[in-house]
Amino acid sequence: MNFLEERIARDGVVKEGNVLKVDSFLNHQMDINLFDQMGEEFARRFAKKNINKILTIEASGIGIACVVARHFNVPVVFAKKAKSINIDGEVYVAEVESFTHKNKNQVIVSKSFLTENDHVLIIDDFLANGCALQGLISIVNQAGGTVEGIGIAIEKGFQVGGQMIRNLGYQLESLAIVDGMDAATGEVRFRN
Amino acid sequence: MNFLEERIARDGVVKEGNVLKVDSFLNHQMDINLFDQMGEEFARRFAKKNINKILTIEASGIGIACVVARHFNVPVVFAKKAKSINIDGEVYVAEVESFTHKNKNQVIVSKSFLTENDHVLIIDDFLANGCALQGLISIVNQAGGTVEGIGIAIEKGFQVGGQMIRNLGYQLESLAIVDGMDAATGEVRFRN
Repeated sequence: MNFLEERIARDGVVKEGNVLKVDSFLNHQMDINLFDQMGEEFARRFAKKNINKILTIEASGIGIACVVARHFNVPVVFAKKAKSINIDGEVYVAEVESFTHKNKNQVIVSKSFLTENDHVLIIDDFLANGCALQGLISIVNQAGGTVEGIGIAIEKGFQVGGQMIRNLGYQLESLAIVDGMDAATGEVRFRN
Repeated sequence: MNFLEERIARDGVVKEGNVLKVDSFLNHQMDINLFDQMGEEFARRFAKKNINKILTIEASGIGIACVVARHFNVPVVFAKKAKSINIDGEVYVAEVESFTHKNKNQVIVSKSFLTENDHVLIIDDFLANGCALQGLISIVNQAGGTVEGIGIAIEKGFQVGGQMIRNLGYQLESLAIVDGMDAATGEVRFRN
């Protein structure tokens, strides 16, 4: 087990319905030293890529992205979630439909902060069905930029998002891939 | 002018209605080196305080808080905004009413992550009327913790929030206090 898997095994809480609660260190209370280790590891895995910007999405991606960004010495842009807004032509918009909830959400980034010159690393805390991630990729494509890679803290390996993104040819690096969990025993099974 | 005031003077955009846009470096695209300088300055200003946790609020406070936290070597908790939720007894809730919009919003933190042992530094990007900040202080008080200080990037000095918080006796440190701005000339006037 790597450092993040160890932390999940120790402090993650498994709930019924394949829910993994990591809010004591990842997405409500945030362990900045852990985020720093994640940054170090992403820097190692994406060492061959020439990255000049990190893109993430509010809210729980922002903290990780900002600490990771120090290891790449690049700025971070965070996409905003909106139910539905009046588009004024100055923003890129991706409309993403949730597989699970069937509702549509918009993901928005100002055109000022993504261009065809950007080589983007996308960072997020969780990857499950990948709806938010599809929106972020769509926005980089709208800008004419390049997705150099995708760094995720925890991937739910039993949901479709990760496979779909890898099928599309992106370098997707998830620091912990959860292949199963058991709410009765609290056990989390990681992919080797 | 200090480093943040210089950056605002250079890259901030003044719009009609006392709107100061700083989304190229503070709250949409985020300059992590600038956040690091802010962390260094807050560490200097709060050097006498014994701080073991940083509290902020989604979304745009999170990035600053996480980078600042490295200078204090403490975890960050971010409060969530909600329109209205069913309270399950496991969260602290502050109901804050906006002076300007007259709508009510809830600010929520899990009871697991704030206790009477916590000595809290509150961090946020903007302070204007101070509604969000009042909610954060209320939540620390509900937990029985101590607000050791409040660190703000940009305070709108011509709105009531900062004065109110100082009147209450808190150590409030705003790195840039804007006393006025002019949309016609683009000029921003800082407090000495």
